[in-house]
Amino acid sequence: MGGDFGPHCIVPASLACLASFPSLHLTLVGQAPLLEELIARGRDVDRVRLRIQHAGEVIGMDERPAQALRGKPDSSMRVALELVRNGQARACVSAGNTGALMALSRYVLKTLPGIDRPAMVTAVPTEKGHCHLLDLGANVDCSAEHLYQFAVMGAVAAEALGIDRPRVALLNVGTEDVKGNQQVKLAASLLQQASGINYIGYVEGDGLFRGAADVVVCDGFVGNILLKSSEGLAAMISARMGELFRQGVVARMVGALALPFLRRLQADLAPARYNGASFLGLQGIVIKSHGSAGAESFQSAIRRALKEIEEDLPERLHGRLEHLLL
Amino acid sequence: MGGDFGPHCIVPASLACLASFPSLHLTLVGQAPLLEELIARGRDVDRVRLRIQHAGEVIGMDERPAQALRGKPDSSMRVALELVRNGQARACVSAGNTGALMALSRYVLKTLPGIDRPAMVTAVPTEKGHCHLLDLGANVDCSAEHLYQFAVMGAVAAEALGIDRPRVALLNVGTEDVKGNQQVKLAASLLQQASGINYIGYVEGDGLFRGAADVVVCDGFVGNILLKSSEGLAAMISARMGELFRQGVVARMVGALALPFLRRLQADLAPARYNGASFLGLQGIVIKSHGSAGAESFQSAIRRALKEIEEDLPERLHGRLEHLLL
Repeated sequence: MGGDFGPHCIVPASLACLASFPSLHLTLVGQAPLLEELIARGRDVDRVRLRIQHAGEVIGMDERPAQALRGKPDSSMRVALELVRNGQARACVSAGNTGALMALSRYVLKTLPGIDRPAMVTAVPTEKGHCHLLDLGANVDCSAEHLYQFAVMGAVAAEALGIDRPRVALLNVGTEDVKGNQQVKLAASLLQQASGINYIGYVEGDGLFRGAADVVVCDGFVGNILLKSSEGLAAMISARMGELFRQGVVARMVGALALPFLRRLQADLAPARYNGASFLGLQGIVIKSHGSAGAESFQSAIRRALKEIEEDLPERLHGRLEHLLL
Repeated sequence: MGGDFGPHCIVPASLACLASFPSLHLTLVGQAPLLEELIARGRDVDRVRLRIQHAGEVIGMDERPAQALRGKPDSSMRVALELVRNGQARACVSAGNTGALMALSRYVLKTLPGIDRPAMVTAVPTEKGHCHLLDLGANVDCSAEHLYQFAVMGAVAAEALGIDRPRVALLNVGTEDVKGNQQVKLAASLLQQASGINYIGYVEGDGLFRGAADVVVCDGFVGNILLKSSEGLAAMISARMGELFRQGVVARMVGALALPFLRRLQADLAPARYNGASFLGLQGIVIKSHGSAGAESFQSAIRRALKEIEEDLPERLHGRLEHLLL
């Protein structure tokens, strides 16, 4: 029920994914009459693999996490997470209120042993491919231990997604040892001592986009600002480019020719919007799709869930954490 | 003597500025024989307005600030700052080691009354124009009081640069009151109580680039990462665009036509590189040009110094701070 477009976007995305992945079973959680109505608009829907689970309440996009936790036992978000906890679903995908989703996920699913706080991770495009950036806003005040746990979780997730011995770096204001705040310096010394983690040191903001690391770790305050400012900058570049291409006849011709190229580029540059973010460190799989995501992006969030199910990411994380953290 | 290209870039930039601004007097501080040699390559140099002050030592780009403070009494950076302190110069412009420049500036010039730490500010391009972002890396751990002082300094500087009642915002992970870490929330309540500051609340990373505020305040860790990642993203976009425009004949034609437009855009998007950053809160004017800046960007750093001299920014700040802070 969440996200800026709610089920009007989520239902078509779900139907498209059902058609693409013959082994996929989906349960849509929310207000049954509305969901039925939207499903009826689809063609050739395989209802054997599409269930509806009614949930009467909806958590608003601006509702406080604490309110969502206490006030709404029958919210679509909570019911969906309970399906995961009870083994009736393997993963939960939501475009709803991020803070509420995180709070409910922790409450309903619990964290893995050794993990204080789950982290939010997404793939950010770089000059060489992608890097996995975490945390993205779940934790605004982080200790060195939290950063260390994020690094471990990011490394394991990157491995599960196919990167061999992922290069793990801490985001910092310089690459020299003396640079940074206390938490970052302490986290660096924890990571230097950890075996089984390919820790490569500090990376700066520009190094991240140059592809200097496969996993980049920071606190949620910094990660959130980095991600949103990157989205803002990419949008600004598109807007300015549009303006440039409207000035004069020649520019307009160039613009018309360049447009398809620029669109492709822009699509690749709105990271969270297009990839979905994953919550790491929970006893279950939870994927957060961007609130303003369209149907296509919601599909990629479902694909991310499928990938994590295939790799059994929580179990894999659990195994590695026992070695690295306990 | 500093920066990636040293006087080979700074001397030509200085000569160009001398020619453009008939009232400008410049003192080049550094190794006199080298400086003389580079000046001799220029044409029609008005030596009445161009002095050389010999300084035998150079601070390396990777040298620690503490080392620069203690070890090199005759560094070009320190001698230049002493000229400002002694009234022999109105401003110091350097492309050298940022940390060393900040440490030496504080030691030689001292901060204004009421200011604990100077901040680094630069103009970042937005959809609507520019916003003044501070701090950019001078202070990695900031209290609410520091953020408040940065906000006051940023507002006064923006006013001096021609913005009427600049909209001042705190950079945060959300726009609701409950969002953010302790320092940011406390700084918000300090700013809400301050009279004479047009405080508009929180702004997010994307809001910054949309032009939601004229002055955006954050700690130096966040500001440094935001600025460097923006530069990195802009560089990545250029690189990817170049690749796109090399694929196939049509793309190459479009690329050839689009290139001048894209260059113009890129130039506007590498903020610190092109504008220079200003140190605020000192008893004197210090402008930091980007280390890898070319001659053109060093000229814009000199122009920024001229603007701050015209507006007598330190004195203006001092007057406002007396009302707002003491």
